[in-house]
Amino acid sequence: MTRERIHLFDTTLRDGQQTPGIDFSVEDKIAIATMLDDFGMDYVEGGYPGANPTDTEFFSEKRTKTARFVAFGMTKRAGVSASNDPGLTSLLQAESDAICLVAKSWDFHVRVALGCSNDENLESIKASVEAVVAGGKEALIDCEHFFDGYKANPAYALACAKTAYDAGARWVVLCDTNGGTQPPEIRDIVAAVIAHGVPGANLGIHAHNDTGQAVANSLAAVEAGVRQIQGTLNGIGERCGNANLITLIPTLALKEAYTSRFETAIDPDRLQELTQLSHSFDELLNRSPDHQMPYVGASAFATKAGIHASALLKDPRTYEHVTPESVGNLRKVMVSDQGGKANFINALKRRGIAVSRDDPKLDKLISIVKEREATGYAYEGADASFFILAQRTLSSVPDFFHVESFRVMVERRFDANGNLKTVSEAVVKVWIDGQATMSVVEGHGPVNALDLALRKDLGKYQSEIEDLELVDYKVRILNGGSEAITRVLIESVDGSGARWWTVGVSDNIIDASFQALMDSIVFKLLKNRDQVGLAAAE
Amino acid sequence: MTRERIHLFDTTLRDGQQTPGIDFSVEDKIAIATMLDDFGMDYVEGGYPGANPTDTEFFSEKRTKTARFVAFGMTKRAGVSASNDPGLTSLLQAESDAICLVAKSWDFHVRVALGCSNDENLESIKASVEAVVAGGKEALIDCEHFFDGYKANPAYALACAKTAYDAGARWVVLCDTNGGTQPPEIRDIVAAVIAHGVPGANLGIHAHNDTGQAVANSLAAVEAGVRQIQGTLNGIGERCGNANLITLIPTLALKEAYTSRFETAIDPDRLQELTQLSHSFDELLNRSPDHQMPYVGASAFATKAGIHASALLKDPRTYEHVTPESVGNLRKVMVSDQGGKANFINALKRRGIAVSRDDPKLDKLISIVKEREATGYAYEGADASFFILAQRTLSSVPDFFHVESFRVMVERRFDANGNLKTVSEAVVKVWIDGQATMSVVEGHGPVNALDLALRKDLGKYQSEIEDLELVDYKVRILNGGSEAITRVLIESVDGSGARWWTVGVSDNIIDASFQALMDSIVFKLLKNRDQVGLAAAE
Repeated sequence: MTRERIHLFDTTLRDGQQTPGIDFSVEDKIAIATMLDDFGMDYVEGGYPGANPTDTEFFSEKRTKTARFVAFGMTKRAGVSASNDPGLTSLLQAESDAICLVAKSWDFHVRVALGCSNDENLESIKASVEAVVAGGKEALIDCEHFFDGYKANPAYALACAKTAYDAGARWVVLCDTNGGTQPPEIRDIVAAVIAHGVPGANLGIHAHNDTGQAVANSLAAVEAGVRQIQGTLNGIGERCGNANLITLIPTLALKEAYTSRFETAIDPDRLQELTQLSHSFDELLNRSPDHQMPYVGASAFATKAGIHASALLKDPRTYEHVTPESVGNLRKVMVSDQGGKANFINALKRRGIAVSRDDPKLDKLISIVKEREATGYAYEGADASFFILAQRTLSSVPDFFHVESFRVMVERRFDANGNLKTVSEAVVKVWIDGQATMSVVEGHGPVNALDLALRKDLGKYQSEIEDLELVDYKVRILNGGSEAITRVLIESVDGSGARWWTVGVSDNIIDASFQALMDSIVFKLLKNRDQVGLAAAE
Repeated sequence: MTRERIHLFDTTLRDGQQTPGIDFSVEDKIAIATMLDDFGMDYVEGGYPGANPTDTEFFSEKRTKTARFVAFGMTKRAGVSASNDPGLTSLLQAESDAICLVAKSWDFHVRVALGCSNDENLESIKASVEAVVAGGKEALIDCEHFFDGYKANPAYALACAKTAYDAGARWVVLCDTNGGTQPPEIRDIVAAVIAHGVPGANLGIHAHNDTGQAVANSLAAVEAGVRQIQGTLNGIGERCGNANLITLIPTLALKEAYTSRFETAIDPDRLQELTQLSHSFDELLNRSPDHQMPYVGASAFATKAGIHASALLKDPRTYEHVTPESVGNLRKVMVSDQGGKANFINALKRRGIAVSRDDPKLDKLISIVKEREATGYAYEGADASFFILAQRTLSSVPDFFHVESFRVMVERRFDANGNLKTVSEAVVKVWIDGQATMSVVEGHGPVNALDLALRKDLGKYQSEIEDLELVDYKVRILNGGSEAITRVLIESVDGSGARWWTVGVSDNIIDASFQALMDSIVFKLLKNRDQVGLAAAE
């Protein structure tokens, strides 16, 4: 049986740019377009040439090799001819393979926003599509507010879609602009459009996530007959976002409900780069990936519970809906106080530590971890601290250096000029090879001062830690009051790009920070000696 | 036409606890159960008594007033009678209204995980449900892996559901444990279960978000006939999370596709507290709310500058699928702060401060707040600090006392007996009525020491603050690295039971804590003088 093609239309660079807090430069757009093109999208919508200098410059040349490069714009205004509409004219001049024009299809908007008659709007759709086709480009029409428009005036919404199709639009895209339509409504309305004479092979769906169902609405539309899906990387977009292509692509490629009937242009081998694509995009946006994102999140294949974990090790099919490898993600069985022996062996193995199930030291390690987790440690988020603790318990870790004492002082007072000033100072006394060194520094706050003091003079190790950098610092108060237990998590990186996490717990935030800082330095020294399992620095 | 009841079953405290990085204390569980109960959930599942000390203690008393309080556990093991199964026995003794037992319904799992025969598993289901009913409690069965099990062996999955129902289970919950099932499959399989003799009125759905469709799967099941939905606050849960009740509740309550046919126990007025519920829960988890979460996210009703924004100002229906007020959220048009002034006047009024729209001091207050929020202050979570700032800007606040300087020291060293010890000491110098007082104390950590020192001797005010107590302390790092900006939120109570929140922001955690501690004391003194609007101590 031949499978039908689902066409993937990416609008990260156009509708995705409507996300609060996201603004792409031309360089960003070039980098993202290249990612999308390489990955195998059918269409890459790049923006709205003429609307702003960035988009105009971006469309000064074609930015994709395989994917169709799409310029976005509006249908011509009522009362002028297509050739006299400056917006449409400049769109036709942009370097693109296709042009996607947004058209009103809800009569209420035609009246309120365009201020023209229903018939004038139909005429604008017809003339605009014809102008695009005459200009030698593929024409797409985004029917804005199609589903709300259909509910208000079905005959007019259908007329808009049919007019675009009859005028020669390759795709008529049904947009749920406000994002509130429910999947059964999508199915029924798509069926009505097809019954009205626009074939499913020429219909697209553009869904928003305002009720958390952009993916489901896209798939409901496919079920009803549409053959193009519009969406964005990681589901970015206005308000609650657009349909997430990073979720839709593996669902279409791996789920039996679709694989028997549909195919996309994405090469099955490429699917294994999905996690990387998603994370690279977040990297470019300079934000942390969502740990719980379907398929690609760090937690998407993570298991915490003891019973699930042991079944998982027996047979991964028991608790995984697809294999993590199929989307380039990793299985993660976490060390936590809910975990059993199997969790530990697995966690150690991934960190390059082999231990036999019957080794009494393993029982000792498990009881130390459980005891510490009961007092507030969280090793599931602190790979490097777990590695050091395991190494110390199961074999040994060199005593590189010894901190005999530290002192941190924060003082707020008026300086000589009468200005209020807060000063933080740290002093540490460190022994290395029978030699004591004292260091003192000032920092931005007590933790920063302590961090700087610890790394100011580590004697013969100093050159080894020059590229060590503390990049994130998280504090969690584990119970109420200022006498509370404090957990500190620290993320470190070095010049090789490796990152690791360490943890400290105490009723004293400075002490907790000290523990995590110490673990970070020790881990770095172990890593420099190749004594660290590769997975630990994932 | 009478509408059918959809029953809401919250599993935040049980399945939600499987989220990587989330561990609830007994105090957390009590606070969350109260939130859920107040909001109007039908069922609150609290955990697994007997599995760990936290859950056992949590079930030492009933924790809800209106909602049914549910204990979770497993069906009895094969080969022992229900009364001889220690797990089931201890479950029956826990303080709960209902017991939800997880049962295998995929023959593959019966073999691999339980290692018993298919018939023995059916017998366990029957005997366990009967034991719960005989114990005077409502019985629920979670059919684990129901949809995958049905695909592998439909007859056996159906037999499991039917056995539970026939034995007296009030609810048979169909679980998509691995989260990979698609909405059309959910619809078809639910229909098959109903056809097999388990009425929809006794069926529940438990969906996971592994393909981004937990909400859609829950609604597809409702469409097919189930009448109970299981989910969690903000969709927390194992891997990619559970069905998000914060999305499902307003969808059921506001979307025409459902309102004509269904109703829930949530009072329509309560719906306006949905945003607050979602944010309070994130606050308790000490994490930033997801800006793009449907209905409640800060961006859910945000529109970037441009054509949408101006249409939105003409008529909000043009670009909003529901009104932000209906779920207690706010419209955010990023070109104009039209709503800004009205919001402020309202917020001040609620705190007992009357101000005229034309008062130039109001403009000054708005600009100070905006400026401070840009540097990291969060006044929406710090009523008392907002009150003090508003009072200072619009009229005045007495200078009760003046802290000239403080000094906090943390020292880690070996004591006289050779034991490693960390000592925290704080010194403050305070002026009251021209008299200086110095106080020095040791505390658990630097913040506790500073708190104790500030409150050790406030001269003539000392007796007034004896009943002031700091009950919660939260730290959030606003950007990476140990040089990061730190925000501290402090919750205080006094003998009258009033509670208030104060905030401090600095690159120095001690300094940020100092600001919040100072505001707390000043607020208490104002409160003692009846200078505080009642709402401020809500």
